[in-house]
Amino acid sequence: MTSIVVDPHLTVVTSEHLADRYPDAVIDEGEDAVSRLRSAPTPTAFITSNTTWDDAFLTGLEDGDWITSVGSGYDSLPLRALEDAGVAFTNSPGVNAPQIGEQVFAMAFMYTRQLWTLCEQQQEHVWSRPFDDLTDLTDDVCCVVGLGHVGEAVAERATAFEMTVRGVKRHPNEYDGIADKVYGPDSLSTALEGARLVVLAVPLTETTRHLIGTSELAATASDAILVNVARGPIVDTDALLAALEDDELRAACLDVTEPEPLPRESPLWDRRDVFITPHTAGLSNKYSSRFLDRFDAQYERWRRGKALNYRVV
Amino acid sequence: MTSIVVDPHLTVVTSEHLADRYPDAVIDEGEDAVSRLRSAPTPTAFITSNTTWDDAFLTGLEDGDWITSVGSGYDSLPLRALEDAGVAFTNSPGVNAPQIGEQVFAMAFMYTRQLWTLCEQQQEHVWSRPFDDLTDLTDDVCCVVGLGHVGEAVAERATAFEMTVRGVKRHPNEYDGIADKVYGPDSLSTALEGARLVVLAVPLTETTRHLIGTSELAATASDAILVNVARGPIVDTDALLAALEDDELRAACLDVTEPEPLPRESPLWDRRDVFITPHTAGLSNKYSSRFLDRFDAQYERWRRGKALNYRVV
Repeated sequence: MTSIVVDPHLTVVTSEHLADRYPDAVIDEGEDAVSRLRSAPTPTAFITSNTTWDDAFLTGLEDGDWITSVGSGYDSLPLRALEDAGVAFTNSPGVNAPQIGEQVFAMAFMYTRQLWTLCEQQQEHVWSRPFDDLTDLTDDVCCVVGLGHVGEAVAERATAFEMTVRGVKRHPNEYDGIADKVYGPDSLSTALEGARLVVLAVPLTETTRHLIGTSELAATASDAILVNVARGPIVDTDALLAALEDDELRAACLDVTEPEPLPRESPLWDRRDVFITPHTAGLSNKYSSRFLDRFDAQYERWRRGKALNYRVV
Repeated sequence: MTSIVVDPHLTVVTSEHLADRYPDAVIDEGEDAVSRLRSAPTPTAFITSNTTWDDAFLTGLEDGDWITSVGSGYDSLPLRALEDAGVAFTNSPGVNAPQIGEQVFAMAFMYTRQLWTLCEQQQEHVWSRPFDDLTDLTDDVCCVVGLGHVGEAVAERATAFEMTVRGVKRHPNEYDGIADKVYGPDSLSTALEGARLVVLAVPLTETTRHLIGTSELAATASDAILVNVARGPIVDTDALLAALEDDELRAACLDVTEPEPLPRESPLWDRRDVFITPHTAGLSNKYSSRFLDRFDAQYERWRRGKALNYRVV
């Protein structure tokens, strides 16, 4: 008999979602994850996330258990301790890729199709056409920095919008996706040169912190739109503000900021050439069903003793 | 010696645009098109549009001349009179397809990605995540009514957003585009059934007037987004308002209305489930270069006496 425990702090996937599919296996009595894990029959599949993880959970886990996170990041998980305890860990990269791919273009279109201005006109019942600033992405260069699941989802959509897609990837030789050309990290400025849409989709590491600064912003087209759906510190905010002041950039679309939440006094809020969304790019009411479809296959593999996909430990 | 005259009422393509490419051929003295046409050496290529056309232009045209419009519509042109006068006429379908394809998704994303709400939050410096209503288009059904250049551009982009694409076309057997399945006009309701994104891209004819009424709106998913980038009268506005009131539709995105401009007292303006853009979907600062790239090839064919593409008369 295997059991399933869902971290009660999760919102995108809940015990109710799991109980619909596995009514006999879900253990949801007990207020916190630790008490649920302790009372669950062994072996246990535990669903949690990078942001809700607590090392106290370890006390309820044992050899043969399996932890899966609902997202891709896992920097808060104690990988070595899990390995020592014989607990498997898998992550779920790409479950958020479709909605983030959509959000990237949603944010860019605020500027190309002048949606912000048109919303305001509607509120005033005004029918007036802002000719000069209307443009489209077709035939422009899109530079996608980071070609993981999210970057590839962006590249696929950019291709459909008839853009030329350049990608930046740590190991460009290993790439077999849709981007027209792929550059290594050392060639970032070349990849950015003349790009009108720049999308940041790299993980935050010591190497990528403030990856986008003054010289990178100068390399893009002067009417480029920068979209950050990665992590706030990838962009040097002071350099960004300076580039916007100097008209070296058309607009910055920021789903992530440094810090988060963005303080009320930040100069970013009041700029018309900055569009801020509160880290919502990965959210979608389809998240749980996408995660569960993947969980189903993994759970079946785990119960049969087969190798798990997306295994980290 | 051939000459080129540009209708001075055009804004998307001007004499200056043409003079850059054909400095010796462009005739731009004289305030109106008729005086320019009369003074132009024969034969003359005349660039005009369906909306700026005036039958008085005929007095300046003669056998062997060629008229090209910058858009696709030509219901205001006197085709029979042109034929009798030996004047060729070509239109320019598809020059506006990339930007309209982009605008369709821009408008839909206002709802799926909650951009309207997030714009308002930004103005108030509020970082708050509207979880429940965030969704994405992936795995949903998109129904594209009309599979001409614009409809096909929409179908290509919808496919990249991982949607299942159904199309409606007068002659479905003749279709060889990207849509997953194509229906004839008699099967419109079947094509709309359960669709979450419905895009109208048919020309306005007596058959398509009020094509979308009560029963068609009832056929879609109850959380469907309707996008009209065709002509206002394709939709029965009263039926649309009733469907929105009854929550039979999530939202209507209207780039065209009946009448245009939309009167200030229209009840559409103040609804949050209606997003109105003032017939801007076809506008883009790339319009002129796209038209001119096509004109170059046509002008060459015309001067060499070869058959013109997109010939109507």
